Amino acid sequence: MAIRLFYGNALAESVGAEHGVARAEIDGLKPRAKGIRAALKKMRANGEIGFYDLPYDRQGAAASKKLAKHVRQGFENFVLLGIGGSALGPICVHTALAHPYHNLLDKKARQGAPRMFFLDNADPEWVGRLAEAVDLKKTFFSVVSKSGSTPETLAQLMVFHQAAAKAVGARSVDRHFAATTDPVAGPLRALAVQRGWPALDLPANVGGRFTALTTVGLFPAAVEGIAPEKLLAGAAAMEKRCRAEDLWKNPAELFAAIHFLADKRKGKMIAVMMPYSSALRDLADWQRQLWAESLGKAKALSGAGVHVGQTPVKALGATDQHSQVQLYAEGPNNKIFTFISVNRFRRVCPIPRSLPEIGELNYLAGHDMGKLLNEELNATEFALGKAKRPSVRFQLDAITPENLGGMFFVLEAATAVAGGLYNIDPFDQPGVEEGKRATAALMGRKRPEDAAKRVEIAASRKKVGTKNAV
Amino acid sequence: MAIRLFYGNALAESVGAEHGVARAEIDGLKPRAKGIRAALKKMRANGEIGFYDLPYDRQGAAASKKLAKHVRQGFENFVLLGIGGSALGPICVHTALAHPYHNLLDKKARQGAPRMFFLDNADPEWVGRLAEAVDLKKTFFSVVSKSGSTPETLAQLMVFHQAAAKAVGARSVDRHFAATTDPVAGPLRALAVQRGWPALDLPANVGGRFTALTTVGLFPAAVEGIAPEKLLAGAAAMEKRCRAEDLWKNPAELFAAIHFLADKRKGKMIAVMMPYSSALRDLADWQRQLWAESLGKAKALSGAGVHVGQTPVKALGATDQHSQVQLYAEGPNNKIFTFISVNRFRRVCPIPRSLPEIGELNYLAGHDMGKLLNEELNATEFALGKAKRPSVRFQLDAITPENLGGMFFVLEAATAVAGGLYNIDPFDQPGVEEGKRATAALMGRKRPEDAAKRVEIAASRKKVGTKNAV
Repeated sequence: MAIRLFYGNALAESVGAEHGVARAEIDGLKPRAKGIRAALKKMRANGEIGFYDLPYDRQGAAASKKLAKHVRQGFENFVLLGIGGSALGPICVHTALAHPYHNLLDKKARQGAPRMFFLDNADPEWVGRLAEAVDLKKTFFSVVSKSGSTPETLAQLMVFHQAAAKAVGARSVDRHFAATTDPVAGPLRALAVQRGWPALDLPANVGGRFTALTTVGLFPAAVEGIAPEKLLAGAAAMEKRCRAEDLWKNPAELFAAIHFLADKRKGKMIAVMMPYSSALRDLADWQRQLWAESLGKAKALSGAGVHVGQTPVKALGATDQHSQVQLYAEGPNNKIFTFISVNRFRRVCPIPRSLPEIGELNYLAGHDMGKLLNEELNATEFALGKAKRPSVRFQLDAITPENLGGMFFVLEAATAVAGGLYNIDPFDQPGVEEGKRATAALMGRKRPEDAAKRVEIAASRKKVGTKNAV
Repeated sequence: MAIRLFYGNALAESVGAEHGVARAEIDGLKPRAKGIRAALKKMRANGEIGFYDLPYDRQGAAASKKLAKHVRQGFENFVLLGIGGSALGPICVHTALAHPYHNLLDKKARQGAPRMFFLDNADPEWVGRLAEAVDLKKTFFSVVSKSGSTPETLAQLMVFHQAAAKAVGARSVDRHFAATTDPVAGPLRALAVQRGWPALDLPANVGGRFTALTTVGLFPAAVEGIAPEKLLAGAAAMEKRCRAEDLWKNPAELFAAIHFLADKRKGKMIAVMMPYSSALRDLADWQRQLWAESLGKAKALSGAGVHVGQTPVKALGATDQHSQVQLYAEGPNNKIFTFISVNRFRRVCPIPRSLPEIGELNYLAGHDMGKLLNEELNATEFALGKAKRPSVRFQLDAITPENLGGMFFVLEAATAVAGGLYNIDPFDQPGVEEGKRATAALMGRKRPEDAAKRVEIAASRKKVGTKNAV
């Protein structure tokens, strides 16, 4: 199989019963897993959650390809304006599947793809200085927001729409923009209609952090020359595996069960994801949103206060062996690790015996650098296991669009199952509302509630005290 | 002052005594802080720890500038080969102080600086494909390793030395290399001597993760046109502040005391650092090594088993509001946050009223994007405080070399003090040795102990079981 999940290092028989999960504990979750499976199936059938069906939705792929063709023909630069779930999937696809130095290559070496930029922050320097590096006359902007009202993204849009209008004239400017948003609702959809922008549909029943396989991920992929069908085909293959009714044969349920048990019974409140591949580093960043925002919840479905959720941590092998592994091996045993390995890299990189003066280190010569990277993972997995730190490993035969689609799917499905195990709603995010309201109030919005919020914030500041500083 | 540390939101009077630190608890640490201060002063005077004196060491700055002049005159590309402490400081300096799209600018816009690459992983694709993006004839390689025997770095060196020799010929190749390493010991120093490379000294009494203000950080900074003296001047100003004998007036001691108390008495085993500035994102990555590798220890100075150490998490505002803040606000209250804010960004970026169709969101228009970013921080700080999550904030008047030097210093000094509070050695890293030994064994090294290690790893694999996979 193209993707395998190894779990031996997470078991009690490997790292001991205090830190590892016993097979009997996993078996004990079978009845609950069965109930969760049925509940999710029902929600899927009712159209309440859409991500399960995305692997079979050819419409988004077709629309993405069509618009991508237009962009590839007419533009040198592609700028995605979006944040959170609107950016993390596309960034992950880019880092994993594009040339590692894509934006430095000429157009021929880029195989017709434009330079790619993902502006996922409202940073005045990062946003404001883009025009010093790219020619806006040759730049296409893709504005992505599910609600259509994300302040950071719309602020960027206002900046770039004016800048592009200055560069190409008010009559031509709207040819440089497209929207990806809700099919009918929200200010961005209305704007696209009024301005005549091409607009891609973002299914209403797919939450922002589950959108990697919608037009959100497929359109930028197609712009880069990555066939959306391949991402979907890999996701479909994984979807079939995640239907298995035996928890031990279902990678999504097994990943969820091991993590849930590690958290609740073994004190592993931190979940580290550590790919051993620079190209896969942003897969950990993408999953970090998925796991945190889906499972970090104050209330159970019953309404009872629970405050659950593992804290996901992104790491990168072998780099973070020189940064985090000291803590991982010797610090509090409060983590479970998910390694990601690659059997065949897309590039051989033999280590030559070019410097005989280097003496003993010549034991490295004659091997490929890919072997070094993989043996570093094997060594770290071994060393952490020896220190009784549990881990699992996703092993990919190669980095392909299919495998990336498969990883998106299995991690999304695992998140849905984990939500069931924690007995919380993995599809909402009530905890971000307070900050959103406060931001709007501080930026001078004029709804009736905004004035009250400003008073509340001022009172809080007074209490905290600005004099408490050194 | 250019850098201020606000701590009101971490106090019990703001977030309650269960989650916030009481003033009396901080006062209670004063005797220990006094003892730690004296012990560190003694180690400094004895030359056991060197980082305290770096702000006043002009030698490294002068040598860095001299070599940098040579690189800037003769090369288009600068490639740093190094990992962990050899890369994190330089990467942070680059992200913070270079143009955000530096490598895409032409040489004039780069103000004479070469394109900058930091290859901090032994990844065959990332390393192997560099030559497809840059001309090796115009490329300078800086090899950085304190011990001079880091396998990832020396493997890269063997690859690029051969590739560069092919490009420019064996007689010219050594003009493309320099080393930064121990002044006398190790294979890299020996190699530099034999090959006639310029070599910068890395003081023997400064550990890898404390080297940002040595030639490790200063040389790449100088190559980019950033005056090393400015980094050192900011560090010197902070060094003076960190001499204060009143804990409440000493930013390093206060940061350490609040984090130590938050961890040991309030259950905040995770320390999130969240700059609200894309340029400062890698300061959190740099600090993550410092905090984890210094404080994540199995044994106390007495030799007793302790397994301490907060888990540092890097985050980025406002981006991660759309990824992690749901968990931060509603999940387990097991975190303390360090925000970093910037008063004046280097670029104004006004949000124009360019799209009247956008309706209510026009409340954003007329403000600068820098205000939006700062109000998002204010809003998040407020929302997390309301949910009783403690935080501190470093407020920088601007992003300058001086302030970056100051941040390096205060966080290094805080780490040293925290080591004292945890009663562990913050300057060693015994926990990485097992993995290093295992890697060398798996790569076929031929020391007597390697064969035994291979047997041990094979036995472990058998126990873990390769059949435990789905």
